[in-house]
Amino acid sequence: MRITVLAGGVGAARFLRGLRRAAPEAEITVIGNTGDDITLFGLRVCPDLDTVMYTLGGGINEEQGWGRDAETHRIRAELAAYEASPDWFTLGDKDFATHIRRSQLLADGQPLSAVTAALCRRWQPGVRLLPMSDDPVETHVVLAGSGEEHVVHFQEWWVRMHAATPAAQIVASGAERARPAPGVLEAIEAADVVLFPPSNPVVSIGTILAVPGIRAAVAAKAVVGVSPIIGGSPVRGMADACLAAIGVDTSAAAVGAHYGPELIDGWLVDDQDKAAADDPALAGIEVRALPLLMRDLPATTAIARATLDLALELT
Amino acid sequence: MRITVLAGGVGAARFLRGLRRAAPEAEITVIGNTGDDITLFGLRVCPDLDTVMYTLGGGINEEQGWGRDAETHRIRAELAAYEASPDWFTLGDKDFATHIRRSQLLADGQPLSAVTAALCRRWQPGVRLLPMSDDPVETHVVLAGSGEEHVVHFQEWWVRMHAATPAAQIVASGAERARPAPGVLEAIEAADVVLFPPSNPVVSIGTILAVPGIRAAVAAKAVVGVSPIIGGSPVRGMADACLAAIGVDTSAAAVGAHYGPELIDGWLVDDQDKAAADDPALAGIEVRALPLLMRDLPATTAIARATLDLALELT
Repeated sequence: MRITVLAGGVGAARFLRGLRRAAPEAEITVIGNTGDDITLFGLRVCPDLDTVMYTLGGGINEEQGWGRDAETHRIRAELAAYEASPDWFTLGDKDFATHIRRSQLLADGQPLSAVTAALCRRWQPGVRLLPMSDDPVETHVVLAGSGEEHVVHFQEWWVRMHAATPAAQIVASGAERARPAPGVLEAIEAADVVLFPPSNPVVSIGTILAVPGIRAAVAAKAVVGVSPIIGGSPVRGMADACLAAIGVDTSAAAVGAHYGPELIDGWLVDDQDKAAADDPALAGIEVRALPLLMRDLPATTAIARATLDLALELT
Repeated sequence: MRITVLAGGVGAARFLRGLRRAAPEAEITVIGNTGDDITLFGLRVCPDLDTVMYTLGGGINEEQGWGRDAETHRIRAELAAYEASPDWFTLGDKDFATHIRRSQLLADGQPLSAVTAALCRRWQPGVRLLPMSDDPVETHVVLAGSGEEHVVHFQEWWVRMHAATPAAQIVASGAERARPAPGVLEAIEAADVVLFPPSNPVVSIGTILAVPGIRAAVAAKAVVGVSPIIGGSPVRGMADACLAAIGVDTSAAAVGAHYGPELIDGWLVDDQDKAAADDPALAGIEVRALPLLMRDLPATTAIARATLDLALELT
């Protein structure tokens, strides 16, 4: 069986850990969001790809959900002593090594997809991890200001500003000119099912879908998504701030309707959102309710299995 | 008083610590060798500049003589896990931060002299530290092989091969096209005296002198050197292997004669080499013998003071 998953960061990585266990024989291809990528201190940082790679490779900081396990922060302190900016993005020492290696390979002329494959040779994540594109796409946030609008990199809004200033607009800058990375369209086309883990529908899944060709390829398949919203709140992160920017309510039903029946065939919501099954906005989408909190690996595996089962049922 | 010093790594850095104490009111400009510089893992490493900067700034690993104090090596282990090469050059975590910051500023388009000044704003070395050139100069070693000759970067010969394979030739590649960095010729011309610390006469002082314009500017001044050879052996490092490559004996007299009376006016040798004072090869050079082992700061300060006193005497 071939499964293709569009992935953001922490939510996707945990879902994938369950999926790998739910379908140990499946060939899983993960298409990772790169809109969050940022160059810091001259080094290329790919937060979502790394979160997936570290989580599936056994190198993640489990409590935090991102970054390396047993991490130290000496480089960061040194850079602060050199008055290097920015000081608001935390990179641990072991994590720095990944960015050094990635930047070295990129500077040697390798595309991000090849570099990601090289890094995964160490981590053996048990899935094929592809960046959505080898071309630069950067998620920018247009801040709603007092008469004046400012644009910041997504990471600056998310990490430095904690998304406290409302976003007037969220733009996947460069997406319209980006091409899917080698293997991306092929992996979608060859997939038996395509799954959306509980990732941010705007800045993770939405950004991947903004790369020309990907949305149409996905829409042609049996697609099931897992709601990242439980009981009106994001399980993690500040997806509500992103949804507000695109005028979508922070509810499982609204996010499912935002994807819409042209794109997804099935939608998993939490038990507490089971009323969504009768929501006319979700007409044409098969809605199932079950416990969606990924509290541990068995719970996550059950969610992944339910997602996969529904997708196979809808094929 | 204005003192200009041509500097290699460890020997120069320690000498400078003594000189700063011997002449606390002097304006000291240090012209550092950059021929040893190397790009590792995509980061620009300047071993000699950093050794001077760390030593005078209080951040050096005292036992080792190079690298940072209280260092750890997590990045290196991570890079090895990624199978990044080379694995023969040891860079500690705190040291990595310096190279990250330097590379970031270089990538922003700043010349090495400006980048060095930026790094020194943190370290406050108490001297003005200038790279010999902002242009790329790389010391290459032509290995004497079995019928065939191979060329390696100096660091590969020095660090990986421990200079065990004899060098047929040592070349300051790019030196002939390099221009002295801004301020270098001015600092030599404005100097009351120019000093050569006990640095490697071939790959440190020799490389600096190979940058067009520097040798002539130095030769016009009162110049005193300190022998890096005591009793027929280098005090530190493998200067003998370098001297052999240029056909110079490993002796205090031979090194003084190699510089020659056109370049240096005075030459300090160790007590055990005092016979050099009567060596006809050193005719035209004022030779003084004194204990030259920089065993601690008072001893080093005495050596620096003697060097400076002789230079002032010869002005």
